[in-house]
Amino acid sequence: MKGTILHGPRDVRFEEVPEPKILKPTDVIIRLSATCICGSDLWPFRGLNEVTEPMAMGHEYCGIVEETGSAVKTVRPGQFVVGSFCISDNTCPHCRFGFQSSCEQREFMTGAQAPLARVPLADGTLVATLDMPSDDLIPSLLATSDVLGTGWYAADAARVQQESTVVVVGDGAVGLMGVLAAKQMRAGRIIAMSRHKTRQDLALEYGATDIVSERGDEGIVRVKTLTNGVGADSVLECVGTQESMRQALQCARPGAMIGYVGVPHGVQFDGQQLFFSQRGLLGGPAPVRRFLPHLMDLVLERKINPGKVFDLTLPLADVAEGYRAMDERRAIKTLLRV
Amino acid sequence: MKGTILHGPRDVRFEEVPEPKILKPTDVIIRLSATCICGSDLWPFRGLNEVTEPMAMGHEYCGIVEETGSAVKTVRPGQFVVGSFCISDNTCPHCRFGFQSSCEQREFMTGAQAPLARVPLADGTLVATLDMPSDDLIPSLLATSDVLGTGWYAADAARVQQESTVVVVGDGAVGLMGVLAAKQMRAGRIIAMSRHKTRQDLALEYGATDIVSERGDEGIVRVKTLTNGVGADSVLECVGTQESMRQALQCARPGAMIGYVGVPHGVQFDGQQLFFSQRGLLGGPAPVRRFLPHLMDLVLERKINPGKVFDLTLPLADVAEGYRAMDERRAIKTLLRV
Repeated sequence: MKGTILHGPRDVRFEEVPEPKILKPTDVIIRLSATCICGSDLWPFRGLNEVTEPMAMGHEYCGIVEETGSAVKTVRPGQFVVGSFCISDNTCPHCRFGFQSSCEQREFMTGAQAPLARVPLADGTLVATLDMPSDDLIPSLLATSDVLGTGWYAADAARVQQESTVVVVGDGAVGLMGVLAAKQMRAGRIIAMSRHKTRQDLALEYGATDIVSERGDEGIVRVKTLTNGVGADSVLECVGTQESMRQALQCARPGAMIGYVGVPHGVQFDGQQLFFSQRGLLGGPAPVRRFLPHLMDLVLERKINPGKVFDLTLPLADVAEGYRAMDERRAIKTLLRV
Repeated sequence: MKGTILHGPRDVRFEEVPEPKILKPTDVIIRLSATCICGSDLWPFRGLNEVTEPMAMGHEYCGIVEETGSAVKTVRPGQFVVGSFCISDNTCPHCRFGFQSSCEQREFMTGAQAPLARVPLADGTLVATLDMPSDDLIPSLLATSDVLGTGWYAADAARVQQESTVVVVGDGAVGLMGVLAAKQMRAGRIIAMSRHKTRQDLALEYGATDIVSERGDEGIVRVKTLTNGVGADSVLECVGTQESMRQALQCARPGAMIGYVGVPHGVQFDGQQLFFSQRGLLGGPAPVRRFLPHLMDLVLERKINPGKVFDLTLPLADVAEGYRAMDERRAIKTLLRV
């Protein structure tokens, strides 16, 4: 079959790869219904993470179970499943604590930008639907696998409360999902920081009450003005740079939590500064598995439409163009038809 | 009158100072029933914080209201009061959010190692008792002003839950109060890290279930062993060095919160490391005022005895010896009789 391999900066190829096989009794093979490109795929694509050997790309997935390993108990061939980008056994103490993304057996999914993929620890990682979902729900179900689950975790870690004021830093797909999550958690005010019309529009559609298009210090001043000088109760940091983190910290009120889900690149915190500013931090790779059943239900009941975050759909064979479109910010997020 | 002035490293003097006066209508003057020396007083005493001009020392206090400014409404002369080391109006948005230590009008108390002291923003800062407390309760009431409130905040920020496993890093007075707080919050297991017999004994008396006397990597291994390799649900960091913070982070499980109340000196966090280890952080100067009424009630009802943390009592005139005893770790905490 053909799959997606990153050979080096900006060198992504759709090329012949071996078909995935069951390697362990806990594996399953799924046939993907759709797959997509993640903002985090752009780090190595842009050469900001080193690529030392060819990488099988893709970690967001949903599809039909094709084959199960001998130890797999909870899913069977023919079922539609969604799994987290973090592979987890869902039984270890970290999983039971709700932090499946720190599972003792954690692996990160790879190779999902392909027609078939191997999912390890299938019983812990996958959630099956009762029935075959209708085709139009596939983008939204795919979104639960990472981008929605990650935005949701940012809101959870930032402890969004009913009626609270939330700032979302970052208007990428994760940030937009953070807006959706904050809305579902009944935040009273959701301030989305975004400079791009299409993203602003989607943020508003997902529940943003205010758009701040200014950046840096100007943006911080705007947020302070909007919150009567107080700052937000919760901030979702969905970028991962020193500047976006600074913005997140400054937009928060003392005692606020910052839920940060953008993988930090070059971010440092000064302990004493953090102490006296009294901002709380919780981040990390999202424990999507914790939220997955609930998020899938919300999609299946058509209460949310996270799939709208895909504003470009391409055939899988055109995956390289999908990367370029996101890199050049021509697309928020690319869905790949398998 | 005579008060306590720090002139430079290790140069603390009990010397003639002007009597405090009402400077603003919101001030009160109190006559101290007792005062004490804080672990944080040792930073400038040891020259680790620069002393650029003579400093009036002392920020933990309780006593009788002597005189009130014209705008003061909630306390009157003759009442017994305790106040937080953080002066706050208790009405601004940060105070109402429970973070009085980030009050818009925040000041830090000074000059309380003296017979009389001025307390600004008295209505927001002070809590009066209904009756005159009995003398034997004075040490415990004094403790609520900072050391207990700070240990309590560490437990609150670390989100100690019923039945949860808690590690306390630091066996100074604040750490011991953290043990007490975790016990009151019904933690199931409280692991106190302490090398000193007298402190270990007090930790056990306050509710510690386990003592870890090893430090550094050995201590971390011990905590991991005690928690079946998992780490603690909550960690209270009560020191403020890079090494103690490292210990706190390593003793915590993924998803755990670290409540840190030791003023960080030279502490840096690497964003990416914190992200992938998935530890949460919340610290800062404790919003003691939030907890003060509850803590004073616990003392007045004789449910807790935080005053036992004072293992040295001296006349105020011997304040310099009190500093030396704490500096040399001959005393956990020094109470000064006024």
